[in-house]
Amino acid sequence: MSDRILASQARPLARVKSWDLEADVVVVGLGIAGACAAMEAADAGADVLVLERAGAGGGTSANSGGLVYLGGGTPVQKACGFDDTPDEMFAFLAAISEPGADSERIRLFCDESVEHFHWLESKGLTFKRSFYEEPGLESMTDDCLVYTGGENCHPWSGLARPAARGHKPQTVGKAGPFLMQCLLASVDRHPLRSEANVLVETLVVDAAGAVVGCVARRAGRELLVRARRGLVLAAGGFIMNEEMLALHAPTLLRCNVRNGVDGDDGRGIRMGQGAGGDVLRMGLGEVALPSTIPNRLSRGIYLNRHGQRFINEDTYYGHVGIEGLLRQDGKVYLLLDENSYERGLVGLEPRWVAETIAELEREAGFPDGALQATVELYNRHAAQGEDPVFHKRKEMIRPVDTPPFALIDSGTDAAIWATFTIGGLRTDRDARVLTPDGLAISGLYAAGRSAALFCGQGYPGSGISLADASYFGRRAARHAAAQGH
Amino acid sequence: MSDRILASQARPLARVKSWDLEADVVVVGLGIAGACAAMEAADAGADVLVLERAGAGGGTSANSGGLVYLGGGTPVQKACGFDDTPDEMFAFLAAISEPGADSERIRLFCDESVEHFHWLESKGLTFKRSFYEEPGLESMTDDCLVYTGGENCHPWSGLARPAARGHKPQTVGKAGPFLMQCLLASVDRHPLRSEANVLVETLVVDAAGAVVGCVARRAGRELLVRARRGLVLAAGGFIMNEEMLALHAPTLLRCNVRNGVDGDDGRGIRMGQGAGGDVLRMGLGEVALPSTIPNRLSRGIYLNRHGQRFINEDTYYGHVGIEGLLRQDGKVYLLLDENSYERGLVGLEPRWVAETIAELEREAGFPDGALQATVELYNRHAAQGEDPVFHKRKEMIRPVDTPPFALIDSGTDAAIWATFTIGGLRTDRDARVLTPDGLAISGLYAAGRSAALFCGQGYPGSGISLADASYFGRRAARHAAAQGH
Repeated sequence: MSDRILASQARPLARVKSWDLEADVVVVGLGIAGACAAMEAADAGADVLVLERAGAGGGTSANSGGLVYLGGGTPVQKACGFDDTPDEMFAFLAAISEPGADSERIRLFCDESVEHFHWLESKGLTFKRSFYEEPGLESMTDDCLVYTGGENCHPWSGLARPAARGHKPQTVGKAGPFLMQCLLASVDRHPLRSEANVLVETLVVDAAGAVVGCVARRAGRELLVRARRGLVLAAGGFIMNEEMLALHAPTLLRCNVRNGVDGDDGRGIRMGQGAGGDVLRMGLGEVALPSTIPNRLSRGIYLNRHGQRFINEDTYYGHVGIEGLLRQDGKVYLLLDENSYERGLVGLEPRWVAETIAELEREAGFPDGALQATVELYNRHAAQGEDPVFHKRKEMIRPVDTPPFALIDSGTDAAIWATFTIGGLRTDRDARVLTPDGLAISGLYAAGRSAALFCGQGYPGSGISLADASYFGRRAARHAAAQGH
Repeated sequence: MSDRILASQARPLARVKSWDLEADVVVVGLGIAGACAAMEAADAGADVLVLERAGAGGGTSANSGGLVYLGGGTPVQKACGFDDTPDEMFAFLAAISEPGADSERIRLFCDESVEHFHWLESKGLTFKRSFYEEPGLESMTDDCLVYTGGENCHPWSGLARPAARGHKPQTVGKAGPFLMQCLLASVDRHPLRSEANVLVETLVVDAAGAVVGCVARRAGRELLVRARRGLVLAAGGFIMNEEMLALHAPTLLRCNVRNGVDGDDGRGIRMGQGAGGDVLRMGLGEVALPSTIPNRLSRGIYLNRHGQRFINEDTYYGHVGIEGLLRQDGKVYLLLDENSYERGLVGLEPRWVAETIAELEREAGFPDGALQATVELYNRHAAQGEDPVFHKRKEMIRPVDTPPFALIDSGTDAAIWATFTIGGLRTDRDARVLTPDGLAISGLYAAGRSAALFCGQGYPGSGISLADASYFGRRAARHAAAQGH
């Protein structure tokens, strides 16, 4: 439409003649952040209105793996024999967030993680009391607990007592759809209003700069919506906005799979900026290289384009993705031998096969001697069950010495690389949106990928985004619901 | 003072009762961007007022090396036999800016670089028609032209015809003070007003969102300043603001030298954000590892903490800095042998010395065999005058094979690492500040380090920041001066 409203052009209250809809707390977006915010606000006694631009709730959360990163001693962790504490969880997340860790928010998140687990169960999610041993990968069974952040790998295993913290809701297969099905059913049981097919276009701000509502569009008509106590932006990130990616996170453009839905066009972030919000970490993303998941392959070695190793192959595949994309320019190869190669694994057809490493090196075009030097060094230590260079775990170490040798091209031009944005609005412990000077904007909250992820310089582990979104969505709601009218 | 005004809290025009000062174009800050903007606006017939928070102009520009990155066939390049063109200059800067290059602005910058050279000379700068052969380093003599961006190194030498483009103003020693002395003297000869000791605190915006002035403070008293045609933020970056660094660019905190003055507290950027401006590349910085400058040392090899090489040692020291900081976590070592070591070079005392590489490896704590494997591979190729792994230039290649061997710790804990921020306000070809939706904010311009650098994902080469600041400062001024009253 020609009168299309730009997200960052907040509308002054003075230009609002009357409101079409009103609520104490208005929630923009019905993924996991919006669903949790809506229920928490309703439970706090607020009159809640949820506005979702798609035909139904779910968003990117419903397309995700469905893991939720929880710990500090959840019932599942206890049942599976993990002795986790908030302190150990904090030690891991704080370390992985350096430099620049937001200790206050990480601390809160860890201290209240067990409570958050119980709250999620009270809202209809179930988690089987079981451990799935294949690290990094959510179970295809209905098993729950899994290592998803390399907690038991170098260097983290030396910094905090390892504990599995990825919690998969109890369902067979991919859990994202199930997760949102449970939460949306629970939303329906709460005393709140929810409308689909309503696009929130921009925010309404009063003369003092407070957010007091929003301008939405329903069936082509403008709708003015008043938020008496607060408005929660839970409208996703910007992974589907090519222009924003090119500007803010151009490296992510190299990834060929975008984990998002149409709504992830950055409108939530831009609306917040239009009301004065600052943004953080806009250049960062979660980057997953799914072909690196299967643990068996950790026995092979990852190589960069110089024929060098660059990471302990047993770590979380998101760490391989970040390292591979940001530090190795997305040029990554996996070397396997007869013992470590397994046919039929997705995306793992070898591009080159040879009887000797020298031959493989030549065929793949590595510098003369480079691959050989790397493999010799690795094998020499591997024969002793050691990896003093990158510290792969002992049980994953095996010499790469049995022909034929296979080299798999796992680079961005050849393999699946999946990504979503983790930068967004700057928020505080109560998910209030902050200005560049650190002042909270009255009435405005952000959670989920409309906000900058609360931890990490990259992406700490699978399940962090859903945990961040649900936990800080709730905190936003509680703070908003408690505001005066 | 208790009534301290936050930069991002723009003041609505409705709250301004009267103006204390007025001008067509108001320039905030008198470093190179502000100086060039002020002169250009005055030359265009505008009534100009410059406000500088310090006691005198100069800013960080006066503390810099003073190189200006110019090319496309400047008189100095021609006199020194370089056959440069705007196309070749563009090819280099566009390639080094990928992914996400802003082709339009890079193109303009290259196309008008010769004109900009003449303009700078017309404003009192002189550039000797001479070439200084030591790459990367500005001359200590009054010689002018120097390679400052690795244009003649891999991979750039294969992407564009190499040309030296670092132009040092004609003075012996560090040229930054001289550069600003010349420009400030020229400013004084222009018909414009300039006030020192005036801190601009925030912007004044009208009901439509246009910037129409600013709130400043002089001798403790508030001063309302009207900008009839436009206001140019040329107030520096945020390298001296620890909180902003921790939030936006935490990796830069590892650098132990901050290239900035007090005024680089991010206020310019935050003011722009408060008026609706978007920010870009806030996580990035220029990172220089000065001990990597001396060209002779390119004959040694750089190592990361795994004992691997990671870069062609002959490249621009800013590339070594960026790679070393962002990809190698600031853990960098330089290996030299008897032939390549020279005593007395600043910051280059070896931490370990040994008669064999194996011994050095053990003493320095590298993984067993790692350093030996690296050196063997390097030496094998070096003996043939080749470096197929990192592509150091032939004339810089020499085997590291003559004992004793020395290892210098060039890491962030041991050597000098210097940095400044290159992220800032998002601007267009005329240096107009843009909203998150890409709309120009009427009346508002940004140049120098208050704006995001126009090119690069890191820092392309010495002299880029001063060139960006001066060139886009001029464009801002021309556009602003041409606005209706």
